[in-house]
Amino acid sequence: MARAFPSVVIENLHPLIDGGRYPIKRIVGEDLVVEADIFKDGHDVVAASLKWRVLGKRAWRETPMNFVDNDRWRGVCTLYDEDIHEYTVEAWTDTFRSWQAEFAKKFEAGISDLRSEALEGAALIEAAARRARDRADRKRLSEFSQQISTGANSEIHAIARSGELEVLMATYPDRAAAAQYDPAPHVVVDRPAALIAAWYEFFPRSAEGRGDGGSTFRDCLPRVDDARAMGFDVIYFPPIHPIGHTNRKGRNNSTTYEPGEPGVPWAIGSEAGGHKAVEPSLGTLEDFDWLEKEVRKRAMEIALDFAINCSPDHPYVKEHPDWFYKRPDGTIKYAENPPKKYEDIYPLNFRCENWRELWAEMKSVVLFWAECGVRIFRVDNPHTKPVAFWEYLIRGVREKYPDTIFLSEAFTRPKMMKALAKAGFNQSYTYFTWRNSKRELIEYFTELTQTEMSEYFRPNLWTNTPDILPFVLQEGGPPAFMIRVALAATLSPLYGIYSGYELCENEALPGREEYLDSEKYQYKERDWNVPGNIKDWIARLNKIRKENRALQLYTNLRFHDADNDAILFYSKMTAARDNVILVVVNLDPHRKQNSFVYVPVESFGQMESDVYQVQDLLSGATYTWRGRRNYVELDPNIQPAHIFLVRR
Amino acid sequence: MARAFPSVVIENLHPLIDGGRYPIKRIVGEDLVVEADIFKDGHDVVAASLKWRVLGKRAWRETPMNFVDNDRWRGVCTLYDEDIHEYTVEAWTDTFRSWQAEFAKKFEAGISDLRSEALEGAALIEAAARRARDRADRKRLSEFSQQISTGANSEIHAIARSGELEVLMATYPDRAAAAQYDPAPHVVVDRPAALIAAWYEFFPRSAEGRGDGGSTFRDCLPRVDDARAMGFDVIYFPPIHPIGHTNRKGRNNSTTYEPGEPGVPWAIGSEAGGHKAVEPSLGTLEDFDWLEKEVRKRAMEIALDFAINCSPDHPYVKEHPDWFYKRPDGTIKYAENPPKKYEDIYPLNFRCENWRELWAEMKSVVLFWAECGVRIFRVDNPHTKPVAFWEYLIRGVREKYPDTIFLSEAFTRPKMMKALAKAGFNQSYTYFTWRNSKRELIEYFTELTQTEMSEYFRPNLWTNTPDILPFVLQEGGPPAFMIRVALAATLSPLYGIYSGYELCENEALPGREEYLDSEKYQYKERDWNVPGNIKDWIARLNKIRKENRALQLYTNLRFHDADNDAILFYSKMTAARDNVILVVVNLDPHRKQNSFVYVPVESFGQMESDVYQVQDLLSGATYTWRGRRNYVELDPNIQPAHIFLVRR
Repeated sequence: MARAFPSVVIENLHPLIDGGRYPIKRIVGEDLVVEADIFKDGHDVVAASLKWRVLGKRAWRETPMNFVDNDRWRGVCTLYDEDIHEYTVEAWTDTFRSWQAEFAKKFEAGISDLRSEALEGAALIEAAARRARDRADRKRLSEFSQQISTGANSEIHAIARSGELEVLMATYPDRAAAAQYDPAPHVVVDRPAALIAAWYEFFPRSAEGRGDGGSTFRDCLPRVDDARAMGFDVIYFPPIHPIGHTNRKGRNNSTTYEPGEPGVPWAIGSEAGGHKAVEPSLGTLEDFDWLEKEVRKRAMEIALDFAINCSPDHPYVKEHPDWFYKRPDGTIKYAENPPKKYEDIYPLNFRCENWRELWAEMKSVVLFWAECGVRIFRVDNPHTKPVAFWEYLIRGVREKYPDTIFLSEAFTRPKMMKALAKAGFNQSYTYFTWRNSKRELIEYFTELTQTEMSEYFRPNLWTNTPDILPFVLQEGGPPAFMIRVALAATLSPLYGIYSGYELCENEALPGREEYLDSEKYQYKERDWNVPGNIKDWIARLNKIRKENRALQLYTNLRFHDADNDAILFYSKMTAARDNVILVVVNLDPHRKQNSFVYVPVESFGQMESDVYQVQDLLSGATYTWRGRRNYVELDPNIQPAHIFLVRR
Repeated sequence: MARAFPSVVIENLHPLIDGGRYPIKRIVGEDLVVEADIFKDGHDVVAASLKWRVLGKRAWRETPMNFVDNDRWRGVCTLYDEDIHEYTVEAWTDTFRSWQAEFAKKFEAGISDLRSEALEGAALIEAAARRARDRADRKRLSEFSQQISTGANSEIHAIARSGELEVLMATYPDRAAAAQYDPAPHVVVDRPAALIAAWYEFFPRSAEGRGDGGSTFRDCLPRVDDARAMGFDVIYFPPIHPIGHTNRKGRNNSTTYEPGEPGVPWAIGSEAGGHKAVEPSLGTLEDFDWLEKEVRKRAMEIALDFAINCSPDHPYVKEHPDWFYKRPDGTIKYAENPPKKYEDIYPLNFRCENWRELWAEMKSVVLFWAECGVRIFRVDNPHTKPVAFWEYLIRGVREKYPDTIFLSEAFTRPKMMKALAKAGFNQSYTYFTWRNSKRELIEYFTELTQTEMSEYFRPNLWTNTPDILPFVLQEGGPPAFMIRVALAATLSPLYGIYSGYELCENEALPGREEYLDSEKYQYKERDWNVPGNIKDWIARLNKIRKENRALQLYTNLRFHDADNDAILFYSKMTAARDNVILVVVNLDPHRKQNSFVYVPVESFGQMESDVYQVQDLLSGATYTWRGRRNYVELDPNIQPAHIFLVRR
């Protein structure tokens, strides 16, 4: 038989991922709303607390939970420490409230002999007096106990329901037999940049837009400043490590290359070093350090690419041949996705005999760059390595550098994308890049923001990447670029563009989503201020994001009706409703579209009349709207979206 | 770092109650369908098995799982042992299928140098040969290996895809690095009576229907035989223990009683004994034993009421006053639900100082009656005792008597009802008794049969109880009685009536659901064959239940459209579709109703034409129907329901 037994049932705790196997995620200052079913046998009243603490710390913090409905209770706390926390629910029988309710029922039913009931109440209060830490409280409780044990029924009834006694009894409850939900699930509390940031990706070697040769780290500041002027927070570099020579790819992925062609940055490793070195043509580690600090000075930071690929020239190939896959003849296997071959890359075997050594070395690579000041890593193709490896690596790095952020670049099947997020990735690439229609966008973002995924999967929305020039951009021209970046910037607090986007670059290999003359394989000539660029549009979007708290929240996204299927209409607002944003986007880059949109006025809170003003933060224009149904018209060649601030 | 790591991700196992905290339930011979998300990094093919075993046994049984869609896999097993089992999923990399797929891709892409690939395949097959337990298999695998290591590409391609090699390789997979879902959840496998039974409740003292004095156990056989003739399987008796004298209730719950009034059977305990004794006016323990055996001879069984109430005269009151609640003056508290008082009952305090002793004694009561041959207990008001207590008691009793079935009589809040079922109750009372409208019935039975509840909560549908004469029966007369029992008998394989129902007894205390002159408080005079009884209707229902396997299944309930809101239309069919039942019920006891009903012909399987026959098993009449839309008309005064057997 059990030594003790749970006095109260606590079930169906929410949020809870896979029964508590994986943590949920929050950023510093974010709320954690916890719900649970809490009940017990019989008619007693129960009480409950939400408890939380930094993992490994002794003392719990706590806040009372409130009854919602149907045995459901809810508590809310705010997490301020950038650390892993645990949270749980404690519940107990509220003996005072139970007595209070019973006494009231009997008194109101006109039962006159309540002597016994009075003495029971007095005893409960006297026991609380003994628990009271504050001397004045102790004294006051004893007085109450005395009054109740000797008073007339009507007096007792009044005292029992007095606010002062209720507060005192709630301050010193008898929790000796309290039950606790066990084991307590975890919540990873990240710094804000894990959820709120605008990313700008560029190749350092293309920083100056010269086609005849590479730029270095020392040449990157103008590009960084331009990104800063556009309002970006994170500068993300493709791999900066030495590029291999053996089987180096040429222009447009040619299997042969001409002298002077720079190779693919993802084919890592040469005589100049591996993952802990920098490509000599970009400069030195000192140059990188300098750049890293310059970027920090601008209140921005660099994200590095963590791509676990080795060129045949990588030092690992000689030093640790046992880490690679071998062919029966003893040679090392290159990467393949039959019939495609990647002769310039050797994949590592994460299940090799010496996997522990390999895993530890991989962790040491990330720690090396963390030591250099880098705290954001975009991880290349994590879905081709064991999920357990990422759980190990991310936990290990964050033990030393808790502010490190990992972005999962897994464009793969949905469950693997979720598994990587659960295993520890702080952010994830998404299918946004290919979601264009109204129905697709509503369906996908409802799943992302309104289901369990929102607890652990933070979408970083990319309009384009060096690997993906979506067809919508190839076909839709500059209006499509304005539409897609407006969606990315407002659907999630976290988004990114790959440079060239602001110039509306959209020349692709025919029938494919690959860039023509992609800078993955060559130096790229560009005029960063070419006429027709949309830098000002992007700058306005980022400014609006920074100035409106509602756009820095994530799960507050709500879609609303619009009559026209080309018009997407959604809102974001703060919990206090002091920042209400309405976004209207014309998804059709080719034609002017108009629609009635149905404004969620009922969620605006109290209004003096049904008339209100909406100020378009993109154009500055202000409109007077009335009630739910209002008219919009968007010409993609002028302005394909409104971002309205509601003014009451 | 971990000593080993899961090579394959296994997640989102279904069924799984509260992360595995509680078992699911099945009856012997029932299928267990298990699904899980199974996937790994990279392009390897995975394979998976569903495994199960009796808890504590060493050897697992297993069956392959099949890929469904979107990384979802499914396996099915049938459970034959009446015992607690555990089940889990094991998954591994199918190295042979992975190699086979890669070889085929390359061969079909016209790559000519596949020497290395051939040797890899040969090595995999040779390794399987070493694992082969059968000598002939070992030899055959070695031959295949030889052929593949030396053959031409086209030969290898053909051999690699040969059925013989595929089967051999699937027989001897390399599961050294297999991952297993852990911890394995449990499934309680009960005997069929836990799910399939018709219950008949009567007061032994009223067996003969004499108003002037009590019947004894020895007088009960005619009643049992009558119930048997109606097709009932379980005879359920209200408490048969000695009834207390102190504060005994009189007719219609009067607080005073006349000499000779028998008292309430739920006020247990007198000088004649407590929960392990029988009320002397019913006979002796030997008499009960005789009756129990007579009932068994009829392929029926007795269910006893386990009601944890003590009259003030119960031996526990003297022997264990510490088990009860005390008032400040030291006297024992009677039961209350303010302002109602139950002065004839003392509740036990399950949280008293000596709770272990009390809990053990309660378990010993059930074991005592199990020893006497009783294996079904209807538990009175379990929601007023700790859930943990029931988990302890049910587990303890079933350790010794695994065929024991517990029915939870908790008419309370939904989450407590679910918690008790999860804690171990094999069956539960439901809200069916008060669900009358079409919308209510569809909503409630969809929740019961189509959600997670169906895994652990088995509804025992009661048309009436000694405490509940629903208003629909008070108002609807005999047609209402026919309607409600037809619903109970077909919506679940498990249902019950309280005697008098078959006589359409419906006199209530005004405005209440209490029976007038309830036999809870007095002897009841009855003519068990009074004209107007519906015994034949009930007998037909039970016969149809016994002859149609579809009605012995539970989660196969599906509702279908009927135009008329008074017509409820549902189907039950076997998985093999060899028994297809359509039920049409007129929910209106007052008026003839007609409707078009929409038959789910698409789920009948292949049919030669869209014409089919439906035979009404209640009336014997056969109708020819065509396609989905067909017409029905039901007069409640003639026959308020059809139970159609579909004949193709």
